[in-house]
Amino acid sequence: VQLAILLFEGITPLDAVGPYEALRCLPGIETVFVGHRVGPVRSEGGRLGLVVDAPLADVPRPDVVLVPGGPGQVALMTDEPLHAWLRQVDETSAWTASVCTGSLVLAAAGLLAGRRATSYWLALDQLGGLGAVPTAERVVVDGKYVTAAGVSAGIDMALTLVALLAGDTAAQRVQLAIEYDPRPPFDAGSPRTAPPEIVEALRARSRFILTGTR
Amino acid sequence: VQLAILLFEGITPLDAVGPYEALRCLPGIETVFVGHRVGPVRSEGGRLGLVVDAPLADVPRPDVVLVPGGPGQVALMTDEPLHAWLRQVDETSAWTASVCTGSLVLAAAGLLAGRRATSYWLALDQLGGLGAVPTAERVVVDGKYVTAAGVSAGIDMALTLVALLAGDTAAQRVQLAIEYDPRPPFDAGSPRTAPPEIVEALRARSRFILTGTR
Repeated sequence: VQLAILLFEGITPLDAVGPYEALRCLPGIETVFVGHRVGPVRSEGGRLGLVVDAPLADVPRPDVVLVPGGPGQVALMTDEPLHAWLRQVDETSAWTASVCTGSLVLAAAGLLAGRRATSYWLALDQLGGLGAVPTAERVVVDGKYVTAAGVSAGIDMALTLVALLAGDTAAQRVQLAIEYDPRPPFDAGSPRTAPPEIVEALRARSRFILTGTR
Repeated sequence: VQLAILLFEGITPLDAVGPYEALRCLPGIETVFVGHRVGPVRSEGGRLGLVVDAPLADVPRPDVVLVPGGPGQVALMTDEPLHAWLRQVDETSAWTASVCTGSLVLAAAGLLAGRRATSYWLALDQLGGLGAVPTAERVVVDGKYVTAAGVSAGIDMALTLVALLAGDTAAQRVQLAIEYDPRPPFDAGSPRTAPPEIVEALRARSRFILTGTR
């Protein structure tokens, strides 16, 4: 099983690393970090460098494709060579997946038309505008398209994907291997549970959060 | 507030990236990824390259120090220059933190003697052998030492740390920003809840899991 994870300038690294950490535990999986150019890209805010190991053209038939999100996703919305690669690999992939605003990129490439999908909570309206059926759930599976809500949801998505690829026992084993027994100190991780004033504060800054620009 | 996150060969990237993603949202924080040499290190299994931006000597007084874990932690147990840096920065740090087997390194450097601390569930016995008081909790705070259980526990730890640094509202805001509303598809993330045969299977492979060697 070959897993291709897209890296790009302005990525939210947890969107890529959360799923990677769960999926890499799967026996027989080979992960390749792909992007336009081999070498480091910088995360949102420029702080963390993550290394692209293969150009897109070198990975034409991954079994699983994962598109993370992050403020840098904005530039990917009109990245035609990337869209062409996504459409190409989607023809043969077993699973095409995204985390956070990565689903906007899949939708922009035309892959989520009429499909139920999710995204970062602040991006669900935009997802609907791109032809998908926005669905405010943690993980949405529609056919071979597996989309996750924001950032940390990639871990839940990856465990779902491990179960789909290798069965429930394999997924439980991975869950214990990464000791995923979450104990958030607060119940503020969703707009449904967070204090309303915090939801409104982030909504007011949503343009900055989604694009990294003021 | 300066946050120094240690990177090293054989790191488990989620140990570093989970906390980074939560802590980077804190207003006024400056994160620097440190290590012995500037440039990429490779994660466990060699798959993901993460870039060290500053040598240890260039970061003598971080406010928060974070030591992730991973199979490469084994080499750090006898890394005297690293231990010397950890002891030095610990003299002035506000918080000294670890994720997963990173607590073994803090303990090996002599920083957890007599302290309550946690680690990866398969490493708690070893932590006790290094002079700490092993505590099977998700996040343990003892004085200025904040340790997390395995891998994904770094996210819970970082939210705890944000609350300690900037208050509960700041932590709730970060939690919503990373949409941390976990919905694991199984209840297998702890040896107390996972099916016993899975716990035993991982325990039998613990030497491989902890060290990356057979």
